[in-house]
Amino acid sequence: MPHLSLEYTQNLVDYDAPQALRILGQVMFDSGLFGEADIKSRAYRLDDHLVGTGDTGTAFLHVQVSLLCGRTDAQKQALGARIAAALKSTLPAVNGPVQLTVDVRDMNRDCYAKEVLPG
Amino acid sequence: MPHLSLEYTQNLVDYDAPQALRILGQVMFDSGLFGEADIKSRAYRLDDHLVGTGDTGTAFLHVQVSLLCGRTDAQKQALGARIAAALKSTLPAVNGPVQLTVDVRDMNRDCYAKEVLPG
Amino acid sequence: MPHLSLEYTQNLVDYDAPQALRILGQVMFDSGLFGEADIKSRAYRLDDHLVGTGDTGTAFLHVQVSLLCGRTDAQKQALGARIAAALKSTLPAVNGPVQLTVDVRDMNRDCYAKEVLPG
Repeated sequence: MPHLSLEYTQNLVDYDAPQALRILGQVMFDSGLFGEADIKSRAYRLDDHLVGTGDTGTAFLHVQVSLLCGRTDAQKQALGARIAAALKSTLPAVNGPVQLTVDVRDMNRDCYAKEVLPG
Repeated sequence: MPHLSLEYTQNLVDYDAPQALRILGQVMFDSGLFGEADIKSRAYRLDDHLVGTGDTGTAFLHVQVSLLCGRTDAQKQALGARIAAALKSTLPAVNGPVQLTVDVRDMNRDCYAKEVLPG
Repeated sequence: MPHLSLEYTQNLVDYDAPQALRILGQVMFDSGLFGEADIKSRAYRLDDHLVGTGDTGTAFLHVQVSLLCGRTDAQKQALGARIAAALKSTLPAVNGPVQLTVDVRDMNRDCYAKEVLPG
């Protein structure tokens, strides 16, 4: 932990997902809440998306961050706000409406397992 | 918010995911719980799936809806039931066993961030 | 329910995801907590991933198990530990650092819908 998942809609043409992950990883690390090697991120390109009941023109970026429980709501809120701001910076020249959302969720510390293999 | 994620297994050949998203988006909107432009949906095709320990023949459709907390369990239960019924309607002539499941989960309102860029 | 999602990074070359799902499905079934036909699993290959702020060389495997609430933390912890051990067994000869993580989360029983179509 933590885990960060970024979803971006396919109509964000030429969206630089690897660069976005680097920017978001930096925000996560700069929060001071996590060790660098613990931050695991991935990006999903959404080939089929929809806004409302028929709008495929609007784009969206959505980030879900999953943390082991124990951080305060204030810490999580601050982290979410920083991620939202960073997300905005990952967009190239805006060429249409985009929604940006961030969901910070807790994982149950007692039900989480982890192992690191040194390779 | 809300966010809706639809997963469908690849053995549902010719499954019309864009149409399914439109149907599900309509159900979400008709619930009266959300503004239309706030409903963000996506579909994932599952290339590798399994039921039980060895069954790749059974198909499944799974929907996860993520809402900001504050709706009652009764509202969420009714929404889940309507989505399940709509999911069923998205299936073409059934050509094998299919499982349909819907999970309605809360997001922590205090840890959610959102921004809309007008384009 | 239950739902199991396996994510694996693309730098785990030749990772046998179908075999991994069979192994994990067996662990789920052997737990005695679920009927075999209820266990629904899927694997996602992560084309874009990152560890920390710039490390794309480290690999990771992450499993999320979603259960209807009602199991004890001890049951969930034991299940998570068994899944982590099984995950490790799915790796071929290790050729670099790999992180393995397992998150067992509850779903709200009152907001879950399910239907089985016999085909």
